[in-house]
Parts: sequence; C-alpha cells; structure tokens
Amino acid sequence: MTRNELISLIHRKQSFLCVGLDSDITKIPVHLKDDPDPVFAFNKAIIDATLPFAVAYKPNLAFYESRGIAGWKSLEKTLEYLESFRSEVFTIADAKRGDIGNTSQHYALSVFSKAHSGLEFDAVTVAPYMGSDSVKPFMEFEGKWVILLALTSNQGSRDFQHLRVNENGFRLFEEVLKRSFEWGGTPENMMFVAGATQAHLFDDIRRIVPEHFLLVPGVGAQGGSLEEVARHGLNRDCGLLVNSSRGIIFASADHHFAEAAAEEAYKIQQQMARLLAAL
Amino acid sequence: MTRNELISLIHRKQSFLCVGLDSDITKIPVHLKDDPDPVFAFNKAIIDATLPFAVAYKPNLAFYESRGIAGWKSLEKTLEYLESFRSEVFTIADAKRGDIGNTSQHYALSVFSKAHSGLEFDAVTVAPYMGSDSVKPFMEFEGKWVILLALTSNQGSRDFQHLRVNENGFRLFEEVLKRSFEWGGTPENMMFVAGATQAHLFDDIRRIVPEHFLLVPGVGAQGGSLEEVARHGLNRDCGLLVNSSRGIIFASADHHFAEAAAEEAYKIQQQMARLLAAL
Repeated sequence: MTRNELISLIHRKQSFLCVGLDSDITKIPVHLKDDPDPVFAFNKAIIDATLPFAVAYKPNLAFYESRGIAGWKSLEKTLEYLESFRSEVFTIADAKRGDIGNTSQHYALSVFSKAHSGLEFDAVTVAPYMGSDSVKPFMEFEGKWVILLALTSNQGSRDFQHLRVNENGFRLFEEVLKRSFEWGGTPENMMFVAGATQAHLFDDIRRIVPEHFLLVPGVGAQGGSLEEVARHGLNRDCGLLVNSSRGIIFASADHHFAEAAAEEAYKIQQQMARLLAAL
Repeated sequence: MTRNELISLIHRKQSFLCVGLDSDITKIPVHLKDDPDPVFAFNKAIIDATLPFAVAYKPNLAFYESRGIAGWKSLEKTLEYLESFRSEVFTIADAKRGDIGNTSQHYALSVFSKAHSGLEFDAVTVAPYMGSDSVKPFMEFEGKWVILLALTSNQGSRDFQHLRVNENGFRLFEEVLKRSFEWGGTPENMMFVAGATQAHLFDDIRRIVPEHFLLVPGVGAQGGSLEEVARHGLNRDCGLLVNSSRGIIFASADHHFAEAAAEEAYKIQQQMARLLAAL
C-alpha cells in the first residue's frame, strides 16, 4: 500500500487506528479453545468486528513464534484473511528484526515474500542498533515499508534512547531519525515507532521528520493519551497510526469479546474522527 | 549448560569454535535438494562432520524463517538432533530479539521452552535498543543465557554503537555492557556479541567485562583474525566463543561439502588448541 493509498484509507474510514493482534493464547476466551485453531478463530472474529473502525492490523510475531509451528500456521491464516480486505487494511509485522545485511535480507523475505515464507505484510518493524546495513535490505522490497524503532513506549527506552550522543547534542532516538535519511528512508517507504507514553517528545521528533508516518504504541493499557499524541504528532496528512492491542482485543474474555472489541475500537475511531476534522 | 560445563567442554575439545548454521537453502549442495528436508539433511551432515572440533552451534533464525513453516520444521529437527549430543554442544538461537516485557517473555518461550514452541536452546542473542525490560524477561529462564549485542561485526555498527554518550564519555556499546550489570547480568547468565572485525576494541570491552564470555562473529568470510581476537579477548577461562558460518558450512558445494567443512573446522580447532595452551 502506498502512502497516498494509506492517507485515502484514513480519510475514508475517519480513523488512524491500528489494532495490535497480540493474540496470547492464554488470554483468549475459553470457549474458543476447542476450535482447531483458536488463535485464528479469535483473530478472525476481532478483525470482522473492528474492520469498520481500523485502518491497520499489527500481529506481534512473538505471540505466534512462542507456539512454534502451530503459531506460524495461525499467523499465516490471519494474514491470508486480512488479504481478502487488501484495499481496506495496512498490515504490519511487528517483528523488531535486524541483523547483518545478508541475514536481514532473509528476515525481509520472511515477512515480505509470500512465495518464500507464506507471509506478505505491507510493513515490518526494524531495530536500529546494528545500523545502516541491517536496515537497508528491508528497504529493497518495492512497495514495502520499514518501521524503524526510534522512541519506544516502555520504561527501558530511557536506558539508551534518551542518551545524548556526541558532537551535536541530539539524543540517540533523534540520531536514528536523522541517519535514516542517509539510508534512503523517505516518507514513502519509512515510518518510525514513537511511544504514546512519551508524547511530550513528539515535537522534537516532528522537527526532524515532519512528513513521516509515526506508528504509536502505548495508548490504552500502557497509559498513553490519544489527545496528547494527536496534539504533538498529527501532520497535514494525518501522519499517525495509533496502535491499541490489549485494550481492544482483550476488552472482554467472554462470549461477547468481539462486540466488546468493536465497542472499544468504535470509541477510539470516534475520537479520531474528531481529531481528523480539526486538521 | 552452566558456565563451568562450557569451560570444561572447551578444554575437553581444545576448541572454542561455534559453527554458524546460516543454512541458506539456495547455497546448499544441489544433490541435497531431492531430500524431503534438504536443510536438515545439510545441517545433520555438517554437525556430524564438525562435532569433534566445535563446542557450539548457532542457527541464525532468519535463514529458517524465510522459508516459513518448512524452515521452522528444519530448525526443529536440527535442534532435536543437536540435543542428542547435549553434553557436547552449546546451542545458540541467533535471533536478535527484543520487545516490551510482556512480548519479550513470548520471544523467550519461543527459544527456551520446548513445551511451548518445540525449540529449546541454551542461549539467545538479544538486541539492547529497547533497554532493561526488553532484556530481563529472557533472563528469567533458569540455566539459560542471554547474549546481548554490544559491538557487532558489520559496517553499520559504526552508525550508533561507536557514538559517545553523555556524561561519562563511554561509547554506546560500552554503555550497553555497563547497564547489563544493573539488570542482573553476570558471567553465569550473560554473554556479549563482539565482532571480530573490531578486535582492537576488545581491550576496552575486557576492561568492563573481564569475566564474561564473548560471542565473536566475523572471523572468516567477514575478514576478522582469530589471532587478533584471541590476543585481545581471551581471559583465564577462555571467555570466547568464536563463530564461523559461511567459511565452514559453505567451504564446498559439491558431494564432499561435509569433509570440506570438517577440514575447515579442524584447521580452526588446531589454531585454537595452540591459543588455549598458551593461557
């Protein structure tokens, strides 16, 4: 999906909500456990219920890998199902990968090439620690997106991301944003992870990357505020994908889990529509 | 495997060689392609041939994930085969994972819990960018090891790892080493990745972590020198696992690939025996 297509989708649905499919098998409703593939059954119900209110879906690969081959199968089926709504959803592999060039290329195949791995997402999250040649191989896939970790939503983000680096006084997360330009990152092929729990730093981020989309985790269960994120993060093209995982998908653990998820997604979408109207 | 067991193994085999099972299916010998699982057939032959000369095996998960479920099956079978030599080999999942706490826990299950994922390694490589709570969940598995990326072997390592961070003038890779102590990292449960291509910096690393094992990629195809690595990296307990991937496993692509791999591994082991004798 191109940047323009994503922007159109956001305006059409009046939403910049991304639903995080962190589908921990121990947390899904008990009545699904007899299904041959409980996690896929759960994901399908969540997708059906939230599709009118969300523009993106983001399975976090950890929750699938932890179940080995069974998990990989659930993921494959989930992606296949999402593909049937191709023009309506942007898909993100939340994988936080990164390795030396030759190896990153294989990680890229694992999320971008259905012919190789059975999976094809629109975008993948990538960790920047290993630098240019760990990121560039992901950028060689025409029409695909790299979402580079910049400022994450967790407590540990303070350990390194906030450190000021030499010469220019920028913090590490700002240095990551700046270096990405040298690697060929543009608003058409790159986004950045920026945690909602640190929305007061979005002004600093926007000074460096005014045009790029930001993928914003941390609203909901982690305590970030959508209003704050929008105030400091929105740009004229929206420029935000705000993720909620647990707050939506685990809104209820009973038979009405899908309706409860839809209700949560709807509430957020309504708030987003108001924020978009004010652009 | 405990630290003492690993040290005993190194002395028994007179080797600190780790064989990197970066088993790219496009590079394995053509005659294996008719096997029902060519990658497992390749790995098994490589393991059989190099077992007398190597103390550790390190599949890089990218080369398995890029083949989806088929790749995951090859990996499972490879691990199962390595398990039959349990006291003779240390196993490393080269995965470079890291995410917020709840999610890292699932990544840990994917490499440390056979009951969950079908895979159980002794160790996993972890990326530090997201800080403490992205690393700690991996450390909660009794008897397992975290191998934290510090100074990698690739060109891109210069982008961030060498930057001097504020206050104390240490470089980012040194800051990673130091912070790991606060997270409960000890020489009994943590190692660090330190690239052979930057052996001149091992003195700086050893000033901060004199006792820890270092996992050293970059000897061979990437151009690092074993002599240099040993001069700056060995400690009284050896303290090194030096990895070679392509230089061993793709030493030949014909019918004699396993013998060629054994020959390369033997050459390195002989050099290592001399270096260990001089301790």
